[in-house]
Amino acid sequence: MARAVVIGGDAAGATAAVRIKDSVPDAEVVVLEKGSWTSYSACGIPYLVAGDVEQADALVARSPAEHRERGLVVRLHTTATAIDREGRVVHTMDAETGETGSEPYDVLVYATGAHPRTPPVEGLDQFGVPVHTLDEGVALRDRLVARDISHVAVLGAGYIGIELAEALAQRGLSATLIDRGEEVMRTLDADMAALIRERVIELGIDVRLGEEVAGVEREGDRCRAVRTRRVGSGGDGDGAEAEPVRAEVVVIALGSRPRVDLARDAGLAIGPSGAVAVDERMRTDDERIWAVGDCAESRHLLTGRGANVQLGTHANKHGKVAGLDAAAFLTGSGRGEAVFPGVVGSAVTRLCGLEIGRTGLTEREATAAGVDHRAVVVEGTIRSGYMPDAGWARVKLLAEPGTGRVLGGQIVGNGPVAKRIDVVAVWCHVGTTVQEAQMMDLSYAPPFGGAWDLWQVAARKAVGQLGLSPAL
Amino acid sequence: MARAVVIGGDAAGATAAVRIKDSVPDAEVVVLEKGSWTSYSACGIPYLVAGDVEQADALVARSPAEHRERGLVVRLHTTATAIDREGRVVHTMDAETGETGSEPYDVLVYATGAHPRTPPVEGLDQFGVPVHTLDEGVALRDRLVARDISHVAVLGAGYIGIELAEALAQRGLSATLIDRGEEVMRTLDADMAALIRERVIELGIDVRLGEEVAGVEREGDRCRAVRTRRVGSGGDGDGAEAEPVRAEVVVIALGSRPRVDLARDAGLAIGPSGAVAVDERMRTDDERIWAVGDCAESRHLLTGRGANVQLGTHANKHGKVAGLDAAAFLTGSGRGEAVFPGVVGSAVTRLCGLEIGRTGLTEREATAAGVDHRAVVVEGTIRSGYMPDAGWARVKLLAEPGTGRVLGGQIVGNGPVAKRIDVVAVWCHVGTTVQEAQMMDLSYAPPFGGAWDLWQVAARKAVGQLGLSPAL
Repeated sequence: MARAVVIGGDAAGATAAVRIKDSVPDAEVVVLEKGSWTSYSACGIPYLVAGDVEQADALVARSPAEHRERGLVVRLHTTATAIDREGRVVHTMDAETGETGSEPYDVLVYATGAHPRTPPVEGLDQFGVPVHTLDEGVALRDRLVARDISHVAVLGAGYIGIELAEALAQRGLSATLIDRGEEVMRTLDADMAALIRERVIELGIDVRLGEEVAGVEREGDRCRAVRTRRVGSGGDGDGAEAEPVRAEVVVIALGSRPRVDLARDAGLAIGPSGAVAVDERMRTDDERIWAVGDCAESRHLLTGRGANVQLGTHANKHGKVAGLDAAAFLTGSGRGEAVFPGVVGSAVTRLCGLEIGRTGLTEREATAAGVDHRAVVVEGTIRSGYMPDAGWARVKLLAEPGTGRVLGGQIVGNGPVAKRIDVVAVWCHVGTTVQEAQMMDLSYAPPFGGAWDLWQVAARKAVGQLGLSPAL
Repeated sequence: MARAVVIGGDAAGATAAVRIKDSVPDAEVVVLEKGSWTSYSACGIPYLVAGDVEQADALVARSPAEHRERGLVVRLHTTATAIDREGRVVHTMDAETGETGSEPYDVLVYATGAHPRTPPVEGLDQFGVPVHTLDEGVALRDRLVARDISHVAVLGAGYIGIELAEALAQRGLSATLIDRGEEVMRTLDADMAALIRERVIELGIDVRLGEEVAGVEREGDRCRAVRTRRVGSGGDGDGAEAEPVRAEVVVIALGSRPRVDLARDAGLAIGPSGAVAVDERMRTDDERIWAVGDCAESRHLLTGRGANVQLGTHANKHGKVAGLDAAAFLTGSGRGEAVFPGVVGSAVTRLCGLEIGRTGLTEREATAAGVDHRAVVVEGTIRSGYMPDAGWARVKLLAEPGTGRVLGGQIVGNGPVAKRIDVVAVWCHVGTTVQEAQMMDLSYAPPFGGAWDLWQVAARKAVGQLGLSPAL
């Protein structure tokens, strides 16, 4: 009997497992999951911490029991410790009993996810709370309802850090955001991110930029404050200690790195992004091993380079593509029919009453990738200017000089604008130019903007600034 | 000195006039406008009637005075009565004084708009109120605040009719919608439109489908009721009188026909849609005459046929394209640099708390145009299912058997979903297939849906139903 082993039971791994089982019903499909949940929405964790979502299992799309009903073998609290490629065996350990075991495979799906970045600062190992897994989210939520917490420091002012700080503020706690950067939300350009920082501060959240954590101040066996030091552009302030940040809990939201240790130890190729290198069917350089989700590399369609974008959308698609390819391998029917085309970097979020979207390249990313670009910024209303509560939005559009090809977009507004980024995502996918974009039949009615969509106003501006034709 | 004459001072005409003046500053540009406003948002009229917008001039993007400041000659209350192509003269009449005149031209832009369809029913000429121009919108609004109105009949259950009925209900009036069709909103397929009818009825608006106006009942010099008769599929009920609809005012919202009489009298070609035929630079078959806006034909990119879509988005683009081409003609520099690529039929609206979007072809339209298609319908939530107020949305996606090319989409939901139609609009523009669509990097976060965008869920379903590959 064919045997598939999947390391990791969250979105990517579980999707691949289900796809293999559905395609090859008589295969034994074993999912190894180190935690206690499967197929959950990691993106929902901040809403759990905020109390918007009350039950942790509401975030679970498919429980271990449901997966078992569909015929999967699910081993919880089971860590993979090594991959023996020659012997086609995954070595495992039960996290609770310490018991070791082994899982032979014909095909292996590597879906180990990512691990949170934690600064090597004394005390953080004890008092730092990562919020990466559902187990950790539940632990933080339970910790916050304890009476003795009034101040929380959040390390990292990316979207998860801000979401959590907002959640803490919503619970009536004092929150301080600490970030090394000069601006919050490095996934946006600084001019767009500044709009968000203003709102974060308005919510009463303290924002400490250009600082990094230097240590933890204790009071008995408890955390009392976080010490920080200034980082900077080489000026005098570098390394200088700043005012300590009062905090009984330190939340770590510094992003996460693809978890590739097992893969690297087994000699699988790692891509330039630091994630496991795969082909367009998510197969590694071992024909029996696929990598999917946060630990796997995707091709960025605008730079042509490997990229590691840790999002549930990609995890789900990776899982389907890998599952089909692994199933085809098991049945000897060549390669799977689906390929993963790559990513353009789309992301949306809602923070502090603002909606935010981005796709393609930011100016910072384009510069880093050596992609020639021109950016235009347009401000406008969300609804027609004469409507009550017309709202405001700022959009930024990047285009390539010479060709006018759309390279990326960013949008921030105080109403429902985030999903409008998808128009630019499609433009990036198919190679639309600003000249074409400005003439497309995008929808309009007074509750939704002006007769020229904001993206088209930006496209027209880009056409003009780049000296392209037709300039309307 | 070069002389341009523009018949019609609303979005399309005024945009063309401005574009000509900007391109050829020493040209004399004369705008003939039969009403008292220029460059206003006709789409905003229902919000004026509803009282959301209080001042009529809020709907005016650029007043006659502003146009004059930019160097245009604007003649209000001036009707064009004939076009003498040989003599290159437009004959005019002052609507107030009856004085006639003539305007010689080197180039002429025909932007006469559309005129409301009015059934040839005795009494409607006296009591029927069209709501097509801003003047008419103001008149209706002023009429409604009079004390003696309690019941209003609205002829036509398209989006303008429903918007007006909702506006009337909002003002505390009893409104009855009367439509010949079997369902409201013929711009959507009946299964989608049914969702809107349910909400219209919930708002207390009476809906009379399958009926048409047959007459008006008077009480002295006032209207008391509208008589209707049943129309149908040839059954017994045809022509039978139905219960009269009590109404002191009868609003006519039966759509409008392109106003082509002057053009036809002048021998200009009329297209299959009934609008003035133009090339892709909006030029008619007379090299000195362009037609733009509601009176002009556009190419429908999915049927390849001429289409008459009366929307401000197209009017604005038409005006720019024609203005550039007319300016190029005046300066002897060949053709204008811009072309109007055509329309895909995008439209959005908000009715009775629902947001609605459509683009491409509906099933009804595809069938009428002989376009082979398959439709899939998907229902889901607007936000992730575990979020508070997850909302609901229904989407419908049409694709071409064999190729999988996206042919159209419709969306209805009880939250901010209308502008999501633009993704499908772009797909229709560029010829994306459902196989490609399902793998695109569309954005996701819990406040905005699931990890698979609803359009992608629909695309996957279409791939499966059409037997295409890759089936995920």
